[in-house]
Amino acid sequence: MLQKPRGTRDFLPDEMEARRAVEVRIREIARRWGYREVCTPEFEDLELFTTRSGEGIIEEMYVFEDKGGRKLALRPEITAAVIRMYINEARVAPKPLRWCYFADCFRYERPQKGRYRQFWQFGVELIGADTAIADAEIISLAAGMLNATGVTYDLKVGHLSLVRNLLRDIEPSAGRRIMALLDKKDFDGMKCTLDTMVKGDLAESLHALVSCSNLDDAFAIAGPVPEKERIEQTIAVLDASGISYSLNFGIARGLDYYTGMVFEGFARNLGAENQILGGGAYRLAHLIGGDDIASCGFAIGFDRVMVSLGDTRPEEQTIVGLVCTNEGRMRAVEVARAFRNAGIRTEMDLFDRSIGAQISHASKTAGFVVIIGSREAESGLVTIKNLGTGEQKTTDLGSAIDEVQSDGPR
Amino acid sequence: MLQKPRGTRDFLPDEMEARRAVEVRIREIARRWGYREVCTPEFEDLELFTTRSGEGIIEEMYVFEDKGGRKLALRPEITAAVIRMYINEARVAPKPLRWCYFADCFRYERPQKGRYRQFWQFGVELIGADTAIADAEIISLAAGMLNATGVTYDLKVGHLSLVRNLLRDIEPSAGRRIMALLDKKDFDGMKCTLDTMVKGDLAESLHALVSCSNLDDAFAIAGPVPEKERIEQTIAVLDASGISYSLNFGIARGLDYYTGMVFEGFARNLGAENQILGGGAYRLAHLIGGDDIASCGFAIGFDRVMVSLGDTRPEEQTIVGLVCTNEGRMRAVEVARAFRNAGIRTEMDLFDRSIGAQISHASKTAGFVVIIGSREAESGLVTIKNLGTGEQKTTDLGSAIDEVQSDGPR
Repeated sequence: MLQKPRGTRDFLPDEMEARRAVEVRIREIARRWGYREVCTPEFEDLELFTTRSGEGIIEEMYVFEDKGGRKLALRPEITAAVIRMYINEARVAPKPLRWCYFADCFRYERPQKGRYRQFWQFGVELIGADTAIADAEIISLAAGMLNATGVTYDLKVGHLSLVRNLLRDIEPSAGRRIMALLDKKDFDGMKCTLDTMVKGDLAESLHALVSCSNLDDAFAIAGPVPEKERIEQTIAVLDASGISYSLNFGIARGLDYYTGMVFEGFARNLGAENQILGGGAYRLAHLIGGDDIASCGFAIGFDRVMVSLGDTRPEEQTIVGLVCTNEGRMRAVEVARAFRNAGIRTEMDLFDRSIGAQISHASKTAGFVVIIGSREAESGLVTIKNLGTGEQKTTDLGSAIDEVQSDGPR
Repeated sequence: MLQKPRGTRDFLPDEMEARRAVEVRIREIARRWGYREVCTPEFEDLELFTTRSGEGIIEEMYVFEDKGGRKLALRPEITAAVIRMYINEARVAPKPLRWCYFADCFRYERPQKGRYRQFWQFGVELIGADTAIADAEIISLAAGMLNATGVTYDLKVGHLSLVRNLLRDIEPSAGRRIMALLDKKDFDGMKCTLDTMVKGDLAESLHALVSCSNLDDAFAIAGPVPEKERIEQTIAVLDASGISYSLNFGIARGLDYYTGMVFEGFARNLGAENQILGGGAYRLAHLIGGDDIASCGFAIGFDRVMVSLGDTRPEEQTIVGLVCTNEGRMRAVEVARAFRNAGIRTEMDLFDRSIGAQISHASKTAGFVVIIGSREAESGLVTIKNLGTGEQKTTDLGSAIDEVQSDGPR
């Protein structure tokens, strides 16, 4: 028996409806902030992703050649593609561009809870606004979206300039190694690397900075950074926005292309794999043939948000089960049309069986049964039974529709 | 400069919003008929697709090996995956199952207008109802969905039993060849094949059947088919449903797994590549390790529907542009939050520039500008300018929100 490929998932209707409901809530926040959806291809030239993330990413991707010998990869993330699209299609559009996407990505690695080979991201890219207010908008929007999902989380905001200032005298390759260890939150490894490499001072300063959640203290540890005023302004706007966050200058975000503000979100009720949000300010366009434009964005790990929310039942809709005798069939088709045109979910019984068997089947899911026998077909009336109350009556079609509509969502 | 892969597309916000608007309309019809969304992986074991469609399909797919040596393919269609999922996950669920999906598929062929390497299908599968009413429901639902998109189209309904009855004495391989030619509407090729192979009678009968749009005449040509009563009942329900269609017994649908009722839809305003709908009754589950269950379904070619609809502007939303001085910044953040919480799309200016420059930028897209200077920050009032009428006033926040909301969608 054929199975779904390893690490992928099938979604049955209950789960799919729960996912769509959360998606709709995130979308609505994006709309209110003026972020409009874009869509890029499911695969891209391999080079796009190696340019952004380095050759190492090849091992973590589904890579294939098309019949023209072009190396393609199923996208492991969407930011690089959105920036490629910006360069190709929207370079001359008035700035800033506020874009969002909801799309699936792929990674080829050992599947585990909350990590799948096909996974979904809701992301945002703000292109062409290099200001403190822009940084703050992106963080506030991320918080607004997570709030809309109902997930409980911790939001951590940092800025790369502080760590980078401490590491300014270290040779670049060692600096990158330390940033990578920081990104993995491997403090022991970092300490070990630092101890063998640099003065004890620096190890202590780095450790103090990473543990510090007060802005003034962090500046005191890191020394003079030119971005100080901008960081303070971003923080001031965040505080005015009423969002809940903490400062964390240990956030490193792995990739070289981040330029300053970075932030991450963590679901409170998940275990080791609890990161549900990551983003920051970056410059990528010039690396892939575009202009050197500042961008800022984030992606929400949609699947982990769903894991964190747990089993949420989709909102139930009132279902009308339509049952009929053979003589009532043609009238039943018209009645079904009228109910559906009124926006009511209406399911016709599709088997040739007794009215009793039809009602019994419908009562498993339906809130109302509408019965069309030969008498109803002749009179033009319908018999409607409220399966909640057991009440049954024969009435005109309009009144029956009114009755279902006034029942409201259950 | 990197480009999108050949045959794929980028969607900018205007186009994406137009697509989402049509998607929403189709979804709503599915909901009213009780069809619930499922989702399967973007790729599947290659074998799934060759089982359904034959080895020939390999040439038309993106095929790749994963690192475990498994042969995978980007899905060329969704039906096989939905049936695989039914077997794996829902075999024992009460029947019928009413499922739908909206998803992208892939084909590796020369790109042309309305044919892309990544394309979207909105599809429906009804699993476990093998009756005339079930056939009619699927055809009526397809018509309802196409009607909801606003596309103008011709719907053609047929049944394989008639052609198959005419071909009953032909050896199976030749019969399949004729069905394939029929599927391509290659009547000259069909005539040529028939002339060299069989009596002239049959060629004439086939041609008469394919040209016939009257049910009784078709039965007279095709001879006795056991499905006659069922076909008549399906047609009677279709007529009662008030949908517009014509009979066409030349529809062959290519694949062996179709069992009877088949139908296709064609956009009136497209050229050679005008098919926007295809479906029918089929049995597939037993070929891929499941039970021999009857199914019925269709897929709408979403991209061609969009081509047929032409340039549709998305509905414009009233946008509020929020502009402020540095002294007004923190109050502006609060004001933006209040507007967004009221459901209004609100865009904050992100550059440090003069109020005049901010208003000038906002007026390119916004319907209203809300201005927060130091006076407004102190008083708690806001200055709102209706960019349509030019009217400007200073008022309390609630009244400003009311004014935008009462402006309604433009």
